[in-house]
Amino acid sequence: MRTRPLKVALLGCGVVGSEVARIMTTHAGDLAARIGAPVELAGVAVRRPAKVREGIPQELITTDAKGLVSRDDIDVVVEVIGGIEPARTLITTAFEHGASVVSANKALLAEDGATLYAAAEKHGRDLYFEAAVAGAIPLIRPLRESLAGDKVNRVLGIVNGTTNFILDKMDTSGAGYSEALDEATALGYAEADPTADVEAFDAAAKAAILAGIAFHTRVRLDDVYREGMTEVTAADFASAKQMGCTIKLLAICERAADGRSVTARVHPAMIPLSHPLASVREAYNAVFVEAEAAGRLMFYGPGAGGAPTASAVLGDLVAVCRNKLAEATGPGESVYTQLPVSSMGEVVTRYHISLDVADKPGVLAQVATVFAEHGVSIDTVRQTGKDGEASLVVVTHRAPDAALSGTVAALRKLDTVRGVASIMRVEGE
Amino acid sequence: MRTRPLKVALLGCGVVGSEVARIMTTHAGDLAARIGAPVELAGVAVRRPAKVREGIPQELITTDAKGLVSRDDIDVVVEVIGGIEPARTLITTAFEHGASVVSANKALLAEDGATLYAAAEKHGRDLYFEAAVAGAIPLIRPLRESLAGDKVNRVLGIVNGTTNFILDKMDTSGAGYSEALDEATALGYAEADPTADVEAFDAAAKAAILAGIAFHTRVRLDDVYREGMTEVTAADFASAKQMGCTIKLLAICERAADGRSVTARVHPAMIPLSHPLASVREAYNAVFVEAEAAGRLMFYGPGAGGAPTASAVLGDLVAVCRNKLAEATGPGESVYTQLPVSSMGEVVTRYHISLDVADKPGVLAQVATVFAEHGVSIDTVRQTGKDGEASLVVVTHRAPDAALSGTVAALRKLDTVRGVASIMRVEGE
Ligand SMILES: NC(=O)c1ccc[n+]([C@@H]2O[C@H](COP(=O)([O-])OP(=O)(O)OC[C@H]3O[C@@H](n4cnc5c(N)ncnc54)[C@H](OP(=O)(O)O)[C@@H]3O)[C@@H](O)[C@H]2O)c1
Ligand SMILES: NC(=O)c1ccc[n+]([C@@H]2O[C@H](COP(=O)([O-])OP(=O)(O)OC[C@H]3O[C@@H](n4cnc5c(N)ncnc54)[C@H](OP(=O)(O)O)[C@@H]3O)[C@@H](O)[C@H]2O)c1
Repeated sequence: MRTRPLKVALLGCGVVGSEVARIMTTHAGDLAARIGAPVELAGVAVRRPAKVREGIPQELITTDAKGLVSRDDIDVVVEVIGGIEPARTLITTAFEHGASVVSANKALLAEDGATLYAAAEKHGRDLYFEAAVAGAIPLIRPLRESLAGDKVNRVLGIVNGTTNFILDKMDTSGAGYSEALDEATALGYAEADPTADVEAFDAAAKAAILAGIAFHTRVRLDDVYREGMTEVTAADFASAKQMGCTIKLLAICERAADGRSVTARVHPAMIPLSHPLASVREAYNAVFVEAEAAGRLMFYGPGAGGAPTASAVLGDLVAVCRNKLAEATGPGESVYTQLPVSSMGEVVTRYHISLDVADKPGVLAQVATVFAEHGVSIDTVRQTGKDGEASLVVVTHRAPDAALSGTVAALRKLDTVRGVASIMRVEGE
Repeated sequence: MRTRPLKVALLGCGVVGSEVARIMTTHAGDLAARIGAPVELAGVAVRRPAKVREGIPQELITTDAKGLVSRDDIDVVVEVIGGIEPARTLITTAFEHGASVVSANKALLAEDGATLYAAAEKHGRDLYFEAAVAGAIPLIRPLRESLAGDKVNRVLGIVNGTTNFILDKMDTSGAGYSEALDEATALGYAEADPTADVEAFDAAAKAAILAGIAFHTRVRLDDVYREGMTEVTAADFASAKQMGCTIKLLAICERAADGRSVTARVHPAMIPLSHPLASVREAYNAVFVEAEAAGRLMFYGPGAGGAPTASAVLGDLVAVCRNKLAEATGPGESVYTQLPVSSMGEVVTRYHISLDVADKPGVLAQVATVFAEHGVSIDTVRQTGKDGEASLVVVTHRAPDAALSGTVAALRKLDTVRGVASIMRVEGE
């Protein structure tokens, strides 16, 4: 074992960073044995230097992150600040000065992963980011390495704990969205500004990262169709229950049937209660991966939190340190398929549509004609009505999303359709 | 990309090997892009050279496996023959001649992994074996790499598809063991000689491999406590149901509470229906991993079969080829903790005991005294009886297995205990 330590610069010492520092200190012996050399915390960059940070020597704290990553003695930079800047500049600077980088920054990776990968490659260094998707759950490494000899066709998962907690509450207690959000906030599952979670920006970033790795092509945040879950109502859950379903916010990355393109999307969807994702409760995450040879795999665990996320960061830290000692690098960006990302209109899915209609003869025939004109075939229809008012619940067969949304637009124009009460996609067979 | 191909020798071309060869041929372009060089099948060793093997050029087939692995132009040897010899000699010979090795051979790894690791290390080569445990499910790589910065405390899983299929049938149809085994055989889930599966030798080998990697110490097949599932009866399932449980054959690897030793065991156990492992149906596998920082992770998927197992083999093939090109090696054996493996007597567990007793006053008091004398405290007792015959079902709190089995031995000696109808451990909280 080498006795000269590898030097680690920690950028950020918040929820995740403080746990990374704690484990590096308390488990130093194990890390050294697994790496083949001790690792030493060489500096910790923060915004507020005066804040007391238990277990971290004051002399390591700095507000000069740029200076820290520019030191030529740093072997690995761990970036757990988050956001686009200064994180991006700090990471590229770190590569320029010869360090490898471990990051948990999904926003940056989805926004501009290509720049980071290019800098890593140019300087012959590693860029690892297991923690960026689904916290502690090993997903990036299984996709990048374990399935490197297989062909992934589909990734389907719950990748945001906050929204899963809210939807689970709505499902089990019958609460509305804002009531469930309040509970999530009170319990620390939702941030003061929950936009990134509930509007699915966070899940969309993860979908971009997963799709890129799964299909060996470049997928950016802008390529991901995104629908948040703030419009999901207690009535939607009631409809879902009648169909033997529940509602989850799903990230779905798919290879088109002809294999010539891929899609990535995030939206609420009904899934059958018998589907394993239906029973993912509270803030847990779970991801299904369907591959040609492997079949269907599922990965489940805590998708966030300081310690779980730090576990993923430290796994990456051990890997890049080993690579550094071996003067090698792990797998870099793999985008050789150059598959284009199709728009949402081309995604093949099913709709659950709930309409308020006039309760008179011929309405169903009129509605059915609209579906037929758009080439959408109907799986089931349920009609209930009283006092001149009626509701019609239609579940379609699989069709391109453009045809489905075209159908809905045309339905809205029918005189006999008083309103569209809810539209929700149905996934998971 | 390098144009000179990496040469692969395939040892065995049965259920797994034929799929490995097929995917290497049909997905050659993807493999080359991911590795950075083409891979070429340089030879295929089998027992019966005359057998027609679709897609494999006859000139590659040989019965001289020893000669094949001794060729100095071979970069990687894929061993999918199985068994101890000649597999062991072929693998060590491959290392001597400069090849890295990918193997699916759990029996050999559990029996004598140390010899293989030592040969790999001596010659600076890789030994990878993702396929040896739970088929397509990434488990070895997550444990060895993703959790390399964490402390694993427990691995609990269903790692044998054949026995899970049988137990699932018994559970859902009320069938007895032999009826369910017949169905498994007819459907191709059980081999003609099912001993390795039903007597849990296969699961014990996997438990040894998982425990060794999880706890960074050496665990051999002989260190694993093993109980098969041939004695599980329909009556046991009925008892389990009354407790809100089902019965699974579990592989359990644990770090002792004081951290000074580890245990590994395989036996049938009752688990609550609410536990995620309870809903693992048919021949699927699933493994729970509990780590200090990561929390509880679960990995689920097809645990066997030609294509799923080949997926794992090919993921390893890509990794060792990349390492070869980079003139590096992946993680080798990690046994630095040198934690001893304790015997079953020291395992802390709970028993479900069903006794046939005389239906007379004082029996319960007598039985309860025996438990108390052995330091075992009782969680619940259920007494049913008629016509002088009665049965007593006792579920204990957690206690060392030695105390629990001591209790059972003492109960058998009581005059009032006519027989012990069933004993089953209870796991999963
Ligand atoms: N929290 C999770 O569960 C989780 C899960 C997965 C991934 N992640 C990702 O991990 C990253 C960090 O998340 P977090 O929850 O740990 O965030 P956090 O608690 O807000 O911590 C951010 C840290 O960065 C420091 N910082 C902010 N701006 C800085 C600047 N310009 N220069 C130097 N330091 C600066 C802060 O300093 P002060 O301490 O002085 O304020 C703080 O220590 C994000 O990319 C996030 O997406 C988090
Ligand atoms: N099958 C699964 O689902 C599965 C899952 C996980 C792991 N594994 C492991 O994968 C390995 C292979 O399993 P399998 O199911 O593919 O076995 P299999 O179908 O019995 O195939 C064994 C192959 O090895 C060849 N062979 C046997 N003895 C040989 C010798 N002395 N020299 C050269 N070739 C020899 C056989 O040749 P012939 O074709 O001429 O008979 C056959 O091609 C085993 O270690 C097993 O534990 C299997």
